[in-house]
Amino acid sequence: MIPLVITVGEPAGIGSDCILRAWSGQKDTFEHSIIAAPAKWLQERLELIDIDIPIKEYDNINEATLNASSNSVEGLICWNPLSTQNSCPVMAGNPSQRTAKAVVHCIEAAANACLHGKAAALVTGPIEKAVLRSAGFEFPGHTEFLAHLSAVAMQQPTKQSDFVMMLASNQIRVALLTTHMALRDVPDALKTSSTLKCLQIVDHDLRSRFGIEAPRLALCALNPHAGEQGHFGREEIDVLAPAAQQARDCGLNVSNPLPADTVFSANMRQAYDAIVCCYHDQALIPLKTLSFGEAVNITLGLPFIRTSVDHGTALDRVGTEDVSCTSLLAAIRMARQMAAND
Amino acid sequence: MIPLVITVGEPAGIGSDCILRAWSGQKDTFEHSIIAAPAKWLQERLELIDIDIPIKEYDNINEATLNASSNSVEGLICWNPLSTQNSCPVMAGNPSQRTAKAVVHCIEAAANACLHGKAAALVTGPIEKAVLRSAGFEFPGHTEFLAHLSAVAMQQPTKQSDFVMMLASNQIRVALLTTHMALRDVPDALKTSSTLKCLQIVDHDLRSRFGIEAPRLALCALNPHAGEQGHFGREEIDVLAPAAQQARDCGLNVSNPLPADTVFSANMRQAYDAIVCCYHDQALIPLKTLSFGEAVNITLGLPFIRTSVDHGTALDRVGTEDVSCTSLLAAIRMARQMAAND
Repeated sequence: MIPLVITVGEPAGIGSDCILRAWSGQKDTFEHSIIAAPAKWLQERLELIDIDIPIKEYDNINEATLNASSNSVEGLICWNPLSTQNSCPVMAGNPSQRTAKAVVHCIEAAANACLHGKAAALVTGPIEKAVLRSAGFEFPGHTEFLAHLSAVAMQQPTKQSDFVMMLASNQIRVALLTTHMALRDVPDALKTSSTLKCLQIVDHDLRSRFGIEAPRLALCALNPHAGEQGHFGREEIDVLAPAAQQARDCGLNVSNPLPADTVFSANMRQAYDAIVCCYHDQALIPLKTLSFGEAVNITLGLPFIRTSVDHGTALDRVGTEDVSCTSLLAAIRMARQMAAND
Repeated sequence: MIPLVITVGEPAGIGSDCILRAWSGQKDTFEHSIIAAPAKWLQERLELIDIDIPIKEYDNINEATLNASSNSVEGLICWNPLSTQNSCPVMAGNPSQRTAKAVVHCIEAAANACLHGKAAALVTGPIEKAVLRSAGFEFPGHTEFLAHLSAVAMQQPTKQSDFVMMLASNQIRVALLTTHMALRDVPDALKTSSTLKCLQIVDHDLRSRFGIEAPRLALCALNPHAGEQGHFGREEIDVLAPAAQQARDCGLNVSNPLPADTVFSANMRQAYDAIVCCYHDQALIPLKTLSFGEAVNITLGLPFIRTSVDHGTALDRVGTEDVSCTSLLAAIRMARQMAAND
């Protein structure tokens, strides 16, 4: 069994707390998994929160995965992809540019482990984008960085429309046509071609990674009441409905653009395997209304499986009792399920 | 006790079904209330759905309200504000322009009954806007028509910012800064002055009609993550935050613009008495995700209390078993509670 690889994210944030508290509560979830980080990041946090977990560090990924696969080690297995010279101290709650390169390198090493078949899936902890940016990290977030690494590995150009952000909980799965942009820019950012591509990626990954034989997709309208036949807004008529039709012509089961205020109601949301949304809040409002803290962020369209927690670094809560590991546990379980279907 | 007045709305729609089924199930809810409609609209529907309810019709509102107040009549009390010449037949499920004037007249008469203190609140059934429009009804919906009637009665001009659409369920109250417009037009429609006015109306009516002594209001951001300090979108900085500050300067308890994806999560929504939203779906998505079919539409800022069902005429379900009266019952109860606080 090939293990999962988990990244801590920003070492000054709650990523380490989540891993340690999750292991304390449900260590079985960590079977067949390795943490791509220096053991000392976790060791220092252990001391801060005053719990005891054995941690074993390996420099060599093969050794780490072998031990994770055989389940022979009691405790957490760290694979440290950093060369020994990188020993910048971590100040809990205070992210530093001095560790930024190490953070990026751990994510890159973990992604490459997936790309080379040494890990079955990647589960990422929360990063502090502003800190990484100031250290030369040019990506809006994890997703774009992982897409870039994948494109490099596959010797292809990276395209925005090649990957899709999905969030999933026990109650609902939502996928996004656009992500982090001003609401004012959303209507013109919606294109028939990229909507079709998104629908195809969601359909493909629901089949291949979620084991759903005939995915049923809902497409959300942009405007209230789906624009009432163009009465307020024409994006449904000009952009979205043509994409839905083209998707159906390709054999997908996709709805016409549906009024977004009713599609998330209890009866309707159960009729779909995923609801494809036009913009960030259209997807995240219903998701967090129903499942705050329990959702998993999934990147579809990558050549490997990647899940993530749905929260940030919560710097003010580092080392405190007020850290929930629910989302991390869900992200690990989701990655494992997806790997089983892969 | 001054009675409530209830309108059927479009007589070919499910308005009558809802009233009759609600009375059958919970007739106590109809104590101290009158239906502003010809009895025959309800009588014909009774025959169609094959149930038996005594209906008593009065031409004179004073007589109707007297009997409703004394609770001396077993059955539904209709007050027919139409002169006898109006006897156009109603075809269940098929709205006709021939009854459009009668529909408008019933709503107008019911509103005037409230404006003149003869009724304590108005509860409206669903109308078919397109049919009314073709008969010369120039308003986008009930709300604007009622605002117009109020302005006429008070000899004042009608302003869009003088009234606020609120939706409420047991779980959440949302109020809208903009209503039925293309999403593309929303950013420029948001103004500091009208946002302030909306916050003031919501605060005022929560105090006077909901009996909340110190209302706690959340103001939703327009952009994802509230724009991340202007990184994607400046409406929070330029429009919404100044309105929130001005409202606080007037003594209101209003949040700064909050990321809309987290404000509706279980813990946060409980911390506010109402959440003021920038656009239709921002408010209606969480409302219907949580409380589909159980919410009440309330118009704030009018000189009288008005509640409404949160559904349409559902023409395809007229006369069938598949009609829920949950929203009507909630609208009547809400109107009665508000009247008790008035």
